[in-house]
Amino acid sequence: MANKKYVYLFKEGRADMRDLLGGKGANLAEMTNIGLPVPPGLTITTEACNEYYAVGRDFPPGMEEQLKEMLAELEAQTDKKLGDAENPLLVSVRSGAKFSMPGMMDTILNLGLNDHTVQGMAKATNNERFALDCYRRFIQMFGDVAMGVPHHDFEEILFQRKSAHDVKFDHQLDAEALKKIIAEYKKLYKRHTGEEFPQEPYKQLLLAVKAVFGSWNSDRAIVYRKHNKIPDDLGTAVNVQTMVFGNMGDDCGTGVAFTRNPSTGEKKLYGEYLINAQGEDVVAGIRTPQPIASLEKDMPAVYRQFVEIGRLLEKHYRDMQDIEFTVERGKLYILQTRNGKRTAAAAIKAAVDMVSEGLISKEEAMLRVDANQINQVLHPTIDPAAQLQVVATGLPASPGAASGQVVFDADEAEKMGKEGKKVILVRTETTPDDIHGLVQSQGVLTSRGGMTSHAAVVARGMGKPAVCGCEAIKIDYHKGIIEIDNTVVKEGDILSIDGATGQVMLGEVPTLPPVLGGEFAQFLAWADEIRTMGVRANADTPEDAQKAREFGAEGIGLTRTEHMFMQQDRLPIVQEMILAETKEQREKALAKLLPVQQDDFYGILKAMAGFPVCIRLLDPPLHEFLPNREELLVEITKLKCTNGTPEMIKEKEELMKKVEALHEFNPMLGHRGCRLGITYPEIYAMQARAIFQATAQLVKEGVNAIPEVEIPLVIHVNELAILRSMIVKIADEVMKETGVTFDYTVGTMIEVPRAALTADEVAREADFFSFGTNDLTQTTFGFSRDDAEGKFLQHYVEGKVLKENPFVTLDPVGVGKLMEFAVKQGRSTKPNLPIGICGEHGGDPDSIKTCYKLGLDFVSCSTFRVPIARLAAAQAAVKH
Amino acid sequence: MANKKYVYLFKEGRADMRDLLGGKGANLAEMTNIGLPVPPGLTITTEACNEYYAVGRDFPPGMEEQLKEMLAELEAQTDKKLGDAENPLLVSVRSGAKFSMPGMMDTILNLGLNDHTVQGMAKATNNERFALDCYRRFIQMFGDVAMGVPHHDFEEILFQRKSAHDVKFDHQLDAEALKKIIAEYKKLYKRHTGEEFPQEPYKQLLLAVKAVFGSWNSDRAIVYRKHNKIPDDLGTAVNVQTMVFGNMGDDCGTGVAFTRNPSTGEKKLYGEYLINAQGEDVVAGIRTPQPIASLEKDMPAVYRQFVEIGRLLEKHYRDMQDIEFTVERGKLYILQTRNGKRTAAAAIKAAVDMVSEGLISKEEAMLRVDANQINQVLHPTIDPAAQLQVVATGLPASPGAASGQVVFDADEAEKMGKEGKKVILVRTETTPDDIHGLVQSQGVLTSRGGMTSHAAVVARGMGKPAVCGCEAIKIDYHKGIIEIDNTVVKEGDILSIDGATGQVMLGEVPTLPPVLGGEFAQFLAWADEIRTMGVRANADTPEDAQKAREFGAEGIGLTRTEHMFMQQDRLPIVQEMILAETKEQREKALAKLLPVQQDDFYGILKAMAGFPVCIRLLDPPLHEFLPNREELLVEITKLKCTNGTPEMIKEKEELMKKVEALHEFNPMLGHRGCRLGITYPEIYAMQARAIFQATAQLVKEGVNAIPEVEIPLVIHVNELAILRSMIVKIADEVMKETGVTFDYTVGTMIEVPRAALTADEVAREADFFSFGTNDLTQTTFGFSRDDAEGKFLQHYVEGKVLKENPFVTLDPVGVGKLMEFAVKQGRSTKPNLPIGICGEHGGDPDSIKTCYKLGLDFVSCSTFRVPIARLAAAQAAVKH
Repeated sequence: MANKKYVYLFKEGRADMRDLLGGKGANLAEMTNIGLPVPPGLTITTEACNEYYAVGRDFPPGMEEQLKEMLAELEAQTDKKLGDAENPLLVSVRSGAKFSMPGMMDTILNLGLNDHTVQGMAKATNNERFALDCYRRFIQMFGDVAMGVPHHDFEEILFQRKSAHDVKFDHQLDAEALKKIIAEYKKLYKRHTGEEFPQEPYKQLLLAVKAVFGSWNSDRAIVYRKHNKIPDDLGTAVNVQTMVFGNMGDDCGTGVAFTRNPSTGEKKLYGEYLINAQGEDVVAGIRTPQPIASLEKDMPAVYRQFVEIGRLLEKHYRDMQDIEFTVERGKLYILQTRNGKRTAAAAIKAAVDMVSEGLISKEEAMLRVDANQINQVLHPTIDPAAQLQVVATGLPASPGAASGQVVFDADEAEKMGKEGKKVILVRTETTPDDIHGLVQSQGVLTSRGGMTSHAAVVARGMGKPAVCGCEAIKIDYHKGIIEIDNTVVKEGDILSIDGATGQVMLGEVPTLPPVLGGEFAQFLAWADEIRTMGVRANADTPEDAQKAREFGAEGIGLTRTEHMFMQQDRLPIVQEMILAETKEQREKALAKLLPVQQDDFYGILKAMAGFPVCIRLLDPPLHEFLPNREELLVEITKLKCTNGTPEMIKEKEELMKKVEALHEFNPMLGHRGCRLGITYPEIYAMQARAIFQATAQLVKEGVNAIPEVEIPLVIHVNELAILRSMIVKIADEVMKETGVTFDYTVGTMIEVPRAALTADEVAREADFFSFGTNDLTQTTFGFSRDDAEGKFLQHYVEGKVLKENPFVTLDPVGVGKLMEFAVKQGRSTKPNLPIGICGEHGGDPDSIKTCYKLGLDFVSCSTFRVPIARLAAAQAAVKH
Repeated sequence: MANKKYVYLFKEGRADMRDLLGGKGANLAEMTNIGLPVPPGLTITTEACNEYYAVGRDFPPGMEEQLKEMLAELEAQTDKKLGDAENPLLVSVRSGAKFSMPGMMDTILNLGLNDHTVQGMAKATNNERFALDCYRRFIQMFGDVAMGVPHHDFEEILFQRKSAHDVKFDHQLDAEALKKIIAEYKKLYKRHTGEEFPQEPYKQLLLAVKAVFGSWNSDRAIVYRKHNKIPDDLGTAVNVQTMVFGNMGDDCGTGVAFTRNPSTGEKKLYGEYLINAQGEDVVAGIRTPQPIASLEKDMPAVYRQFVEIGRLLEKHYRDMQDIEFTVERGKLYILQTRNGKRTAAAAIKAAVDMVSEGLISKEEAMLRVDANQINQVLHPTIDPAAQLQVVATGLPASPGAASGQVVFDADEAEKMGKEGKKVILVRTETTPDDIHGLVQSQGVLTSRGGMTSHAAVVARGMGKPAVCGCEAIKIDYHKGIIEIDNTVVKEGDILSIDGATGQVMLGEVPTLPPVLGGEFAQFLAWADEIRTMGVRANADTPEDAQKAREFGAEGIGLTRTEHMFMQQDRLPIVQEMILAETKEQREKALAKLLPVQQDDFYGILKAMAGFPVCIRLLDPPLHEFLPNREELLVEITKLKCTNGTPEMIKEKEELMKKVEALHEFNPMLGHRGCRLGITYPEIYAMQARAIFQATAQLVKEGVNAIPEVEIPLVIHVNELAILRSMIVKIADEVMKETGVTFDYTVGTMIEVPRAALTADEVAREADFFSFGTNDLTQTTFGFSRDDAEGKFLQHYVEGKVLKENPFVTLDPVGVGKLMEFAVKQGRSTKPNLPIGICGEHGGDPDSIKTCYKLGLDFVSCSTFRVPIARLAAAQAAVKH
């Protein structure tokens, strides 16, 4: 059998070969084939990478032969030869997985240079200094990126040499200085690797390919994949591409540009370039580059060509592009294009604009915005009325305002963040090694780097505020301070940043809620047109309900009544009710709660006039409302061994007796939910009466109140039957007493496997179902969220025992199967049974997709996630 | 539309009309139709009873008309007339539900007597005293049973009158005395009911019928139904039957007899009779009756006829019969027959005998023994070598030996029993009102009544030891003592009874385990032939394993390793392991546990040589092995406020820190089961090694050890995959190290809904499944057994929210559906996947039936329930 094809020339590939060629390789192939000026090259497949690992880090049989063959083609195309002292072929080597991964190996440029070819290059370009500089850069990159020689050691040699020659910038170093640096670099290389710097270009290439393959399993790459939920078994491709030089003089340059503004979505080329530089100079943020607009002045023809190519690529890919380019002696080369990462605001504006431009449909527009990212747009902004102590301004790299304690170290940021502290990570620049700290920070501030620097790109991806390239701040890691002019900010002090303006402020700043008009409103209006599932919010107060309406909720999917019981003015009455020895005493306490609860429900039902409000009757076990058992135990012990009087001890012990009587081994699985309603019907009776009296009152006032009474934790239809008949009786009574008729429904949570498994029976007594997937996940997995997340769940997710935290994203296999069963069975009894979901999963896009597939009628989520849910519901409908 | 037929003459009914006519009515009809001498009568249907309740305690339309019509037929048949002063028809009225229920209304005899008909009767029988005595009895029974006039008040009048007349027995009262009693009874009746004693026989009849209907919902009847799992909606029929008189002289009598001995099963008439008495005299145990064998001497012809009828009835019903009869002036009447209640031993012997006699098949024999009852046969007997302080001997009414504190009151017995105390209920006689106390007692001792007295019947049904009619004991309820000759036993003192011999002993007695040979062994051998499911035992020690083999277990279905960890000599090492700060420290502690565990497994595997032993790896959360958190908290608090040194406090606080770190909110849903194996693989590695090293050692010794390694609490196939590969690796290592090869399997518990729902995936990595239905019930219902049983489950079962306690009997609907799914999915992956169940449900006959329907391969239960499981499995196979 013939070997697999492991190596493709660019012209042999296509955009839809991302799996095999990686995103970058597929795009280079596609660009090549649509006739763009792409330097010729080849791609080694992801399959080769996987087989490399499968056989224990060795190239699969046949790969090297194919590589040699394709290299020969490349040599023929460019009329150059690898290692040819006269006319050497130089190439770049880059990783390129299916999904773009900043965690992986950077580019190695100028591969093919050695002591001989550097001379050939000097001759060919008539510029020895340039050739030597290329060689110097190559050794450094190869040593650092491919062989793990510390970057800093190379920089140290460079710095020493600049000092010795008394120059400030790299480009001021002359040929002799560069030769010395090269010699020192080679020594450094040998000291670290134990081998001479490889002079054989083909050997350089093989080492570089191995380094790319190896980078797939670097710690950074693994962390990145975990954070971005990218599978570990995709592998990376390797792109080997003919070098073009942006650093051969002032008619050269290199840059990165987006076809639209990635922060705002504005339809205008957006990017940066450096004259006389290679690509890594832009990305690394070491020199602060020029805005792309200047290119029109610097190189008008190139600029026009680039604008045209941008237009072409947007039309071809039907999406905003992020394009890397190089200009070599006035000739434009496109090195890479990909769909541009963008803020949610930009994604929304671009999507809305593209619909207007006729580039995409409304349905496609829905898929252009990551629903989770919408969060960003909802971030608060700084109150414009506030007096701000602006101490510096950097680049507005990622929108949103944030305040927090200054932290200089990613590890420390992670630690404090996990402790619940708000921190701002402050670095001269960030690297992929800092990602874990970024994840736990409120925002990031860097003193160097542009809008496409690492910190900026990553922060936008995470939806975190970032201010970058803020050169006014001087960071002294050793002293643990930042100097800003005459101000000193110490580690631990509070700073604020505004990622929309680039401003940096001392102390904490007041913020305003986000404005949700314009393109955002338009976009979500389309989402509402497209989606078929309803979106409700969870809200326990009239204020929350009001907010929910503003965010577009079409009702309240869950009002928890226990929060009302916990309020300070009610807790004593609630405790009185719980500690009651007789039903009469309990009813007396409940009578006091009735008007209070009625007011609660009145407010929420009024705020949601015209929309349904689903009110869950009391759910938690009663001991949650009593003093803490351990504290009481300590108190009693103390009283006993110090000066407690017998009366004091007795009083506490009496309380303890009740607390003990209500104590549970597994409160999650205890005397709660409708079990309370069955054993203490008077509690649910009071709540039902409060709901109906509030409803009657509103109806009298001409307000369209639509209450839905929800019974939690049902395991058997009998529970529901008993409670439903009691509630219906109370509704009848209230109608009779008030002379008002009103509509209401009585339904149930499906949050215990047995309810799902007997949904056909349960549906007989239910006007609606609402999945409580937090409890359903706990019982289906047999682990309590509180215990699992603190103890072993992280281990499970990191160790890939579970793909996701099932409390964040609904388990589509186990819990999903139960839900599917419940939907089917429930509707076998009542074909039009309304079924929804409430709880956190209702605001998670992946979970919403699952809900859509299951045929749910609505999702309900926390107020701030309502826009996310609206979009996710639309996306689910489009994808279907 | 014509009315329903509510009233049937006996000759209109059939045995298969039990639903409509009740058990008694259907049997009377059947007996009538096969030509037995049954006094003619009629039956009012259970439907009439249910409709009586449906319309609010009123007779359904048409019932009375039918009753009158059928009464006329009866009058025609007997040539007597209801209320006819010359030749009155007298009838008995009895309740009769589908299932025999001692909790319901007793018989009312002699209905139809009034001030006039009593004279007619006196004339007709030429015996005024007899007629008056009948009238006296009728007023008493009607007043007591139908109208709720206290029994004791009637007895008091009777007692006073006997004292006044200076006689000892009722039958010594003359006509004048009886007339006075009748007058006083009528006054008592009026005082209590507010009405005159009804003189109109038809009115008497209607009141009696209403009383029977009413008795269906008496507290006793409800308690009895609950205890015996009889549905509440069956209703009772009413049997109205022509009176025959066993109390018209010495050629009369009445009795009850079994066709075989209900205690032993011996094929010999067994029963009692009283000359010149009515039926209630036998049942109530007020006079101590003659053994049935004496009847042969007293009335040879009647005896022969009775023996023949017994034979006929056994053949007709193909089961042992319990027959009530009356002899009126030398003529035998059969009043009732039913399948006789019997002890398990009797049931087994009778079943085995009937197979030998060719009366029934082996398969039918299986269904003749209540599997739950087998427990009785397994009850311990008194050690014959023991020195017994026998203080009295009564009737051996129900087998088994028991010791406990003397209690005189059923309420007290219930209370103490629920507190876990062992009590013997001691009463002169028991009534259905005492059932709740009997349920909670170890056994019952009565000073009056025979083998068919209430106490004896009920105790045999419950499988509790009983000694009845022990006249040597004198109970003084007021003083709270028993006098036995010169010995005084106080309430609370310990007594022992032996229900097999009738002996009563002071203090606690040593007992021997039951012998399981003879018919029992034969019967279970047939069960083993018939059943298709395997039966294993749960055992954690070699002794248990040995016992399990003796009981017929075909393997160990569950060996819990945590009990081994809890043993006093190991706990310190286990704690050392848990408190270890590093993996190395933990492994050091585990290394100490390894040989100990190896010994554990060696012993069990050896005891079960040739049979599989399923060993579950560590399951409970680690904090269970540490000191109690609350106690530690109190200790620290005490140390702090008294004289604790800083070192003492620090030491405890260090321990507390670890305890706190391991503390869980819901331990049932916490860091346990294979979650421990995933996070601390070294623990499971040690256990696997211990199992395999023990196996290798045994194989070397020529013992056929068959270990099955069981992974608990799996939720995702990945867990199993990870642990399985580790275990397989260890097995390989041990085989290499020891040079021995052995067989083993690795399987999993299915005890969390997700495992059941993803059983197709889980099966990929499992050699077997074993359902852990305790945890599966907890998670499917979302309630923890500890909390539910203490808090609300009783309320749920009593209130019929749930039909049964799902921890006792497997929920066939909810949990059963999950199991069905798991079996189907598991076998879709591996068609021959062995699937079993372990835990308490595995020893519950109803649950075993469910397991059979689900297609399980084996059940595993506690050692003592193995015989029950063997029979229940056979029954399931027969019923299929």
